[in-house]
Amino acid sequence: MKIAVLGVGLIGGSLARALKRSGWATSIVGYARREDELQKAIELGVIDRYALEPEAAVAGADIVVLCTPLKAMESLLTRIQPALTDKTIITDVGSAKGVVVEAAMNALGSLPAGFVPAHPIAGTEKSGVEASFAELYDDRKVIITPVEESVDWAVETVKEMWESAGAVVESMTVEKHDDVLAATSHLPHLLAFTLVDLLAHNSEHKKIFHYAAGGFRDFTRIASSDPVMWRDISVTNKDAILSNIEQYQNHLASLKALVEAQDEQSILEFYQRAKAARDAHIE
Amino acid sequence: MKIAVLGVGLIGGSLARALKRSGWATSIVGYARREDELQKAIELGVIDRYALEPEAAVAGADIVVLCTPLKAMESLLTRIQPALTDKTIITDVGSAKGVVVEAAMNALGSLPAGFVPAHPIAGTEKSGVEASFAELYDDRKVIITPVEESVDWAVETVKEMWESAGAVVESMTVEKHDDVLAATSHLPHLLAFTLVDLLAHNSEHKKIFHYAAGGFRDFTRIASSDPVMWRDISVTNKDAILSNIEQYQNHLASLKALVEAQDEQSILEFYQRAKAARDAHIE
Repeated sequence: MKIAVLGVGLIGGSLARALKRSGWATSIVGYARREDELQKAIELGVIDRYALEPEAAVAGADIVVLCTPLKAMESLLTRIQPALTDKTIITDVGSAKGVVVEAAMNALGSLPAGFVPAHPIAGTEKSGVEASFAELYDDRKVIITPVEESVDWAVETVKEMWESAGAVVESMTVEKHDDVLAATSHLPHLLAFTLVDLLAHNSEHKKIFHYAAGGFRDFTRIASSDPVMWRDISVTNKDAILSNIEQYQNHLASLKALVEAQDEQSILEFYQRAKAARDAHIE
Repeated sequence: MKIAVLGVGLIGGSLARALKRSGWATSIVGYARREDELQKAIELGVIDRYALEPEAAVAGADIVVLCTPLKAMESLLTRIQPALTDKTIITDVGSAKGVVVEAAMNALGSLPAGFVPAHPIAGTEKSGVEASFAELYDDRKVIITPVEESVDWAVETVKEMWESAGAVVESMTVEKHDDVLAATSHLPHLLAFTLVDLLAHNSEHKKIFHYAAGGFRDFTRIASSDPVMWRDISVTNKDAILSNIEQYQNHLASLKALVEAQDEQSILEFYQRAKAARDAHIE
């Protein structure tokens, strides 16, 4: 399989390494905006060769994997369109999927049969090709979100690619994906950013952070995530995020009402349900 | 120094062990409701002897340390009152301090000169005397919250006790303590309980938890905390918690408005401020 990886950072670089490890890829061509990053990728053995134009990287590829920030995808798809054939499989790694479908519609006019959006649930707080490693996807989940236009052979091949990279692949609709991710990832990030920014507004914030114990550290760890990436997610998955914030606001208001009313029994049941759900489903 | 530890669990047991380690305590008497727990504490070498009545444990003590749940303190203080002298120092380890002052007022009629509330910012997710260890307080913070009535020698002795247990002692008012803890500990716990309970309400919750990645695990870890303890904190530090929830609601509403308006620049600045504050003050 000849692979074109557009965007050779942590995510794209790790995929390239994993596909070399398994032997699934016969050749991997990289594209990135900065040539020094591409040269580094060559030196590290992550890719076989590179192109300075995305359309050149894509020419002759069996699979094109978009590993750039979400907001770069539309213009990239516009540029590579002339190099795509009926047989080219196009997939991506974006954390929101509705926006990728929209970008493809805008760039290509319609969704090609080989188009299969995907999202690996993996990553570290680091970025760049130096941070990439072949084991990143081992036993991690990858959600593929085929659209109506996606043909079976394309869906199967994308699934195979991720499995050969070590991942466990599951499939759901674009809408379901965006809602699940809004609930389990986007909402928690926004809640953590909100808490830390609230405390940082307080004139006594240094003192407050100073007394923060381990629980606070864990709770706010995700507030140290990349602000640019999270801005992009916040605008690209806007509808699902807003709906999840609203549900959260309602639920917080109901807990607040219980505290206000000193309803000890209902407060206890609330916390017991939460603890039981977490203990049953997480770790 | 003769110490009476009322409530010999993780917190009281670890304090007893630490005071034996440093040699600061010449004798440690324990009291608990269950005799088998006290016998276990003797076997483990945590306390020297025990009493089955709190007033007997307190008789002759230089310092009485209340290490029971917050809601047990008032009745305990009522029972030990006859055994207290002008020289007895009374302190506690409760996570909220206003409620302890109130309990002392109710039980004793007025605040004694030897009364110095305190709160060690330490603990693990375990409980019981078997979980106690001498190093629990090493380099951890203990906040003491002297009241107007507290005399200097009592404040100094409580400070000395915690320092000999390995802790770093800082002092603030009762009100400030309750507000700081509401912001850095109580609010995050309530936010985490709310998120997990919200997702557990969803009929698809198993699927949702199933896709949760590492960030979600960290963010919700505190939702696995003891529901009874958190119910008690929620009602005993009610005012500060409600005020902090309100501030949080307002701040979340303003982030939601930015997302709704797709105000990319302001969203970015919001996240950047949060990340900068966390990176500067935590870890």
